[in-house]
Amino acid sequence: MFAELSSHARDLRDRLTAFMAEHIYPNERALLEPPAEAERWAPRPLAMALMAKARAAGLWNLFYNHGPEGQGLSNFEYSQLCEILGRSLAAPEIFNCNAPDVGNMEILAAYGTPEQKAQWLAPLLSGEIRSCFAMTEPAVASSDATNIETAITRDGDDYIVEGRKWWVTGAPSARCKVAVVMGKSDPTAAKHKQQSMILVPMDAPGVRVVRPLRVYGFEHAPLGHAEVVFDRVRVPAANMLLGEGRGFEIAQGRLGPGRIHHCMRFIGLAERALESICLRAKSRVAFGSVLADMGAVRQVIGQSRCDIEQARLVTLKAAWAMDRLGNKAARNDIAVAKIVVPTITGAVIDRAIQIHGGAGVSQDFFLAEAFAETRFLRIGDGPDEVHREALARAELARWA
Amino acid sequence: MFAELSSHARDLRDRLTAFMAEHIYPNERALLEPPAEAERWAPRPLAMALMAKARAAGLWNLFYNHGPEGQGLSNFEYSQLCEILGRSLAAPEIFNCNAPDVGNMEILAAYGTPEQKAQWLAPLLSGEIRSCFAMTEPAVASSDATNIETAITRDGDDYIVEGRKWWVTGAPSARCKVAVVMGKSDPTAAKHKQQSMILVPMDAPGVRVVRPLRVYGFEHAPLGHAEVVFDRVRVPAANMLLGEGRGFEIAQGRLGPGRIHHCMRFIGLAERALESICLRAKSRVAFGSVLADMGAVRQVIGQSRCDIEQARLVTLKAAWAMDRLGNKAARNDIAVAKIVVPTITGAVIDRAIQIHGGAGVSQDFFLAEAFAETRFLRIGDGPDEVHREALARAELARWA
Amino acid sequence: MFAELSSHARDLRDRLTAFMAEHIYPNERALLEPPAEAERWAPRPLAMALMAKARAAGLWNLFYNHGPEGQGLSNFEYSQLCEILGRSLAAPEIFNCNAPDVGNMEILAAYGTPEQKAQWLAPLLSGEIRSCFAMTEPAVASSDATNIETAITRDGDDYIVEGRKWWVTGAPSARCKVAVVMGKSDPTAAKHKQQSMILVPMDAPGVRVVRPLRVYGFEHAPLGHAEVVFDRVRVPAANMLLGEGRGFEIAQGRLGPGRIHHCMRFIGLAERALESICLRAKSRVAFGSVLADMGAVRQVIGQSRCDIEQARLVTLKAAWAMDRLGNKAARNDIAVAKIVVPTITGAVIDRAIQIHGGAGVSQDFFLAEAFAETRFLRIGDGPDEVHREALARAELARWA
Amino acid sequence: MFAELSSHARDLRDRLTAFMAEHIYPNERALLEPPAEAERWAPRPLAMALMAKARAAGLWNLFYNHGPEGQGLSNFEYSQLCEILGRSLAAPEIFNCNAPDVGNMEILAAYGTPEQKAQWLAPLLSGEIRSCFAMTEPAVASSDATNIETAITRDGDDYIVEGRKWWVTGAPSARCKVAVVMGKSDPTAAKHKQQSMILVPMDAPGVRVVRPLRVYGFEHAPLGHAEVVFDRVRVPAANMLLGEGRGFEIAQGRLGPGRIHHCMRFIGLAERALESICLRAKSRVAFGSVLADMGAVRQVIGQSRCDIEQARLVTLKAAWAMDRLGNKAARNDIAVAKIVVPTITGAVIDRAIQIHGGAGVSQDFFLAEAFAETRFLRIGDGPDEVHREALARAELARWA
Repeated sequence: MFAELSSHARDLRDRLTAFMAEHIYPNERALLEPPAEAERWAPRPLAMALMAKARAAGLWNLFYNHGPEGQGLSNFEYSQLCEILGRSLAAPEIFNCNAPDVGNMEILAAYGTPEQKAQWLAPLLSGEIRSCFAMTEPAVASSDATNIETAITRDGDDYIVEGRKWWVTGAPSARCKVAVVMGKSDPTAAKHKQQSMILVPMDAPGVRVVRPLRVYGFEHAPLGHAEVVFDRVRVPAANMLLGEGRGFEIAQGRLGPGRIHHCMRFIGLAERALESICLRAKSRVAFGSVLADMGAVRQVIGQSRCDIEQARLVTLKAAWAMDRLGNKAARNDIAVAKIVVPTITGAVIDRAIQIHGGAGVSQDFFLAEAFAETRFLRIGDGPDEVHREALARAELARWA
Repeated sequence: MFAELSSHARDLRDRLTAFMAEHIYPNERALLEPPAEAERWAPRPLAMALMAKARAAGLWNLFYNHGPEGQGLSNFEYSQLCEILGRSLAAPEIFNCNAPDVGNMEILAAYGTPEQKAQWLAPLLSGEIRSCFAMTEPAVASSDATNIETAITRDGDDYIVEGRKWWVTGAPSARCKVAVVMGKSDPTAAKHKQQSMILVPMDAPGVRVVRPLRVYGFEHAPLGHAEVVFDRVRVPAANMLLGEGRGFEIAQGRLGPGRIHHCMRFIGLAERALESICLRAKSRVAFGSVLADMGAVRQVIGQSRCDIEQARLVTLKAAWAMDRLGNKAARNDIAVAKIVVPTITGAVIDRAIQIHGGAGVSQDFFLAEAFAETRFLRIGDGPDEVHREALARAELARWA
Repeated sequence: MFAELSSHARDLRDRLTAFMAEHIYPNERALLEPPAEAERWAPRPLAMALMAKARAAGLWNLFYNHGPEGQGLSNFEYSQLCEILGRSLAAPEIFNCNAPDVGNMEILAAYGTPEQKAQWLAPLLSGEIRSCFAMTEPAVASSDATNIETAITRDGDDYIVEGRKWWVTGAPSARCKVAVVMGKSDPTAAKHKQQSMILVPMDAPGVRVVRPLRVYGFEHAPLGHAEVVFDRVRVPAANMLLGEGRGFEIAQGRLGPGRIHHCMRFIGLAERALESICLRAKSRVAFGSVLADMGAVRQVIGQSRCDIEQARLVTLKAAWAMDRLGNKAARNDIAVAKIVVPTITGAVIDRAIQIHGGAGVSQDFFLAEAFAETRFLRIGDGPDEVHREALARAELARWA
Repeated sequence: MFAELSSHARDLRDRLTAFMAEHIYPNERALLEPPAEAERWAPRPLAMALMAKARAAGLWNLFYNHGPEGQGLSNFEYSQLCEILGRSLAAPEIFNCNAPDVGNMEILAAYGTPEQKAQWLAPLLSGEIRSCFAMTEPAVASSDATNIETAITRDGDDYIVEGRKWWVTGAPSARCKVAVVMGKSDPTAAKHKQQSMILVPMDAPGVRVVRPLRVYGFEHAPLGHAEVVFDRVRVPAANMLLGEGRGFEIAQGRLGPGRIHHCMRFIGLAERALESICLRAKSRVAFGSVLADMGAVRQVIGQSRCDIEQARLVTLKAAWAMDRLGNKAARNDIAVAKIVVPTITGAVIDRAIQIHGGAGVSQDFFLAEAFAETRFLRIGDGPDEVHREALARAELARWA
């Protein structure tokens, strides 16, 4: 709305829509079904084949606008593509647009040295490897990032990384080759200068993926979350990102776009949930009526359209503000979307579950897993409460 | 957002903001305080004086874009001005932008004959007279407009209007000179061709303002709502609007913009409610803390910012769609705003009431009256349920 | 539920129900309609006549169980009668069961000297006079009662009362003869020993009813709320209640029952609102259906039954706990009811308003005024937030 | 509340509480952790050992009051024990109080022939075998039980059962030996006489457990739900329960207690969730405060106490009504509890998840699985909408 897509973006959108129909939806259940135990973390041939197809089709790195590997789309434009690929939880990986790789590629593009880019960014952009992002810690309330305790200590030409992280998305996959780790390099510095981010190869001695974490009952293998121990892991000093003490600076630059990408995807999930309500309602009969003719069902449909519109508009507004004003100036708009969208889309999905009956909570539909995903994002990347607090600070500051 | 205001609109916005500060807020309590019984429906000198000032300042008929009497603003631009004047329930009248006159002026501009325009539109645009709109009837569920029973019967060169209406806003005012009346001219016609709209002078024999209606306890004299009886009222055939049987056609054209204007105003009320939360929270102490430092209060503030953003964006989207696609094509966007905005803004106002304690429900703040107004608009111009039903019909129709 | 009413209570209940049908509902609009300006605060002959009838019928002081003037009912039993009289906002006064007289009579019965009882309790129990209770102050957040600033200063054989109060219910009525005033008698004492309560005759020099306060536009004359100034009002030392510094002790004893009485009444309002939904739904047709046949309406009805059950059960539980364990031990149960019941009953009433359309917010039904009353009680007698905080303190204290 | 427990029930309650502390909580994670693939549906030695202990301790068949195998508790009394064992999703099985065995034992006790009792009830009561209940079908909206299509056809001395069921809880377990199957025995009979229930041994030829069903990713092996095909399964005519055409009659008798048992359990889950909020809030620090000192957290705690009280009271009321009036007369009370309790307890659990951050959705706490369970029960045993509709019918019928 409110602005035209360029013809390039429109073309991508149409081709993306077609690709989803041809390759993603028909393979969705297979892609998301938990693998047999023996191959839980191995690359899945089906996914690899689809990635190759997507790349060949030029539907690759749609989020990326730092160079020829991407598509040069604005956030506003990418929003409208991301919504489409967001319709399936199986899709972002296929288009090389999944978290946390997207955020890591952004970090490397913005802050990486030429060597870091050559070593990690290039194979990430090509889809050859995967990465993970290690920030949250089980021992402390990580919603307050100053609580983080993992130590990054200089030792000659190296740093020693020591700590325990969890919710390290993607870590257990055999394809994951590097972690971006946030930790404390100088506990005596000013509060927001104590933290650094550093690149840790997953095969460095001392890196241990302790166990996978489940979200509700979903493990999401091989892409899921894990608890990871860094047991005196030694990495070269050249792996430091941007410079000691600049971890918060990187985090701020990384998290805004990351958050809004989740919101974009969720609009797609919510639209699909609403479609599924309509389709189910038209196909089932109870108490002598087609569900679609029942007033209570229709109220749910009408309200869901209202809700999705709100979710989409706050997302587009934030994307627009990022394009126009920059990520920092757009931070309140991003916070609004981060609060609003997971709650609203979760509610729409929950209504779809109710209408589907038992099928809705089962593995036969995308709904239960989509609910888990949206619910998780009311915690992940900062719980709602922290973002509301940030908005309140800004509001109160307007009135001296 | 999403588009620049023209320099003309920006200039109007700035001058409007200044006028509000100088003339409206300081006089608000006086304008809204119930008049003494003897002068309940008389013109109020203070209001008349302010109207003259507003007109002289060129802050007049901001909504109107059919000719030199207006400002030539798009709906999208007017939205952002209407939000400002909407901050005070006392303001719309002062700027000649209040319901139902706005809608009636739109009807006359769009559908009136030259004679009708000369007789009624000109003095409405100049603010010389006021008008009312008589549609809802106490005897039937008027949310289904086909239920309406008032009869408009041809009799020679005249029509006879016979029926009982209520929620006729503005009718009791001494300044109200004409009613637009919806009624049934041909009960045998096709369902949406039975109705007509006709102009009825308030001093025509048989027009009786039976009693004022209160909304919650607010009478809003002299602008409030009334029950009106049309007791075999005879009007010339030339008073028919557009033509017999075209009442629904006019209603469709009228109601869309009317609904969105309410939404625009409500954004202003909600913004002001949020400001009042912040100001109150900064000025009161309980249990050893300034309220503004309490986490629960801050959560309310943060959430309210999210809510207002959603309300504003659906309103702007609808205005943008009306400008670009026309009122008819924008009807679903308008329905979304009509459902979303009164509920959200009512909720924000309700939170402000809670933070103000007893003061919040009293006449000392604008809040209680603003709540009543937003709550009323979940019923007026069609209850939420009817609009959700319309959206559901559109959604279901997408899936054959 | 859960326990039988005694035959005495059952008999009272049946006779009360009959009295409501015969005398209250038919006169309700007349009793609640705002009086003409000249007689706004005068005794209303209709109300006086009904009070005489109620007293003659033995339906009098149903709440009172301290002596022969009352009915000897337990809180559990009174709950079930109070629910019935609570169905009409006009009824409590008629049965001498209205706030704040009930609370004041309880205070005088529990803490009054024989002289105080003779002077004030006796005529209150007989209905000869009315009283008011002055605690909340406009200048401070009175939800924290330690904020209260009105001074009660010993001066020889007298006390001087100096301060400004508001939300003094019943103060403007010509029949109101005495105020119970809470104020600070010793600002240097321990936090909860600084306050005293004292009896102030309304005709004492220096007592000024400054203005009535409206609740959502409702003035409730002649019973409504007021702002009252105590301008160096001198009263005899014998007017002190219980003793200097014991104001909090009295407040604790008074507020528990007061709060639960509001809850009991609100169950009655909610039941009546649900009835009104059913009756309206059966009598109106829209879009070709009786409303009562529409699924969305039926969902509202079913949910409202659930909601009312919850409200009633927490109220009965609190009454039962008060009977069995005493007001102090029941304080958390009372807090639960105080939080739950106004919100739930307000929501049921609001749904009834929606189904009634414009009629619902108007003076033609009891609904809008009932909503205002329930909404006010989410603030009055302590806002929800304060009661939730008290519950949280108790919960957290369970886990060392 | 509202009534004393007998000393027998109090004693059981205390011993049950002690058993939970000693045996259930310490083993909970082990009992609920998904088994390795090879032993997914096998009996788990740990569970078997705990069952033996519970039986030896006399904490067995607490729900059962039809004979010496049970404890003779009223529904009201059992409620208060069931709440305790409901605190852990691992517990009901250990005490032989889990669904659907409880309901099946009730059916057999009430309607079984001596032979049916000897063959199936006795080993169920002793815990030797498990059973399942096959009602819902994937092909139709089973919320309207008249939609059910599985055929039960007389064939000589046998019946042939033919159909596809799902949400057959417990079916995949190796210990499950018999299914109660609902199906249509006479499609030409009156609407509520077409259905029968029949006992089908799980090892009868043609019974196929097609696949397990997951609920939000949880498979709950070996107790979970399954899709089951009955492929022309032949069973002796003596397996018919109560008589042909009496399926609805049995369902009515079975479902009421079954529903209320879920509610009882959920109160326990909600209490435990609230405890977990308090404990977590006391142990974590963010932004310089212990969470337990933050106002927003405390509001959540206070509100959760209110919510749980409501859930418990509607459950106790329903149990009390069943004891006193019978299951049929109590059906509206049961419907209220069925609607209210899963929603409320799910909301409390969801708040606990939010406060736990990532831990809350993971396998480290009971919360995510508890949420899935409560959410499922807004669909299972009839979706909320169907129960609200039943309540609405009753309400509307009161007003002729």
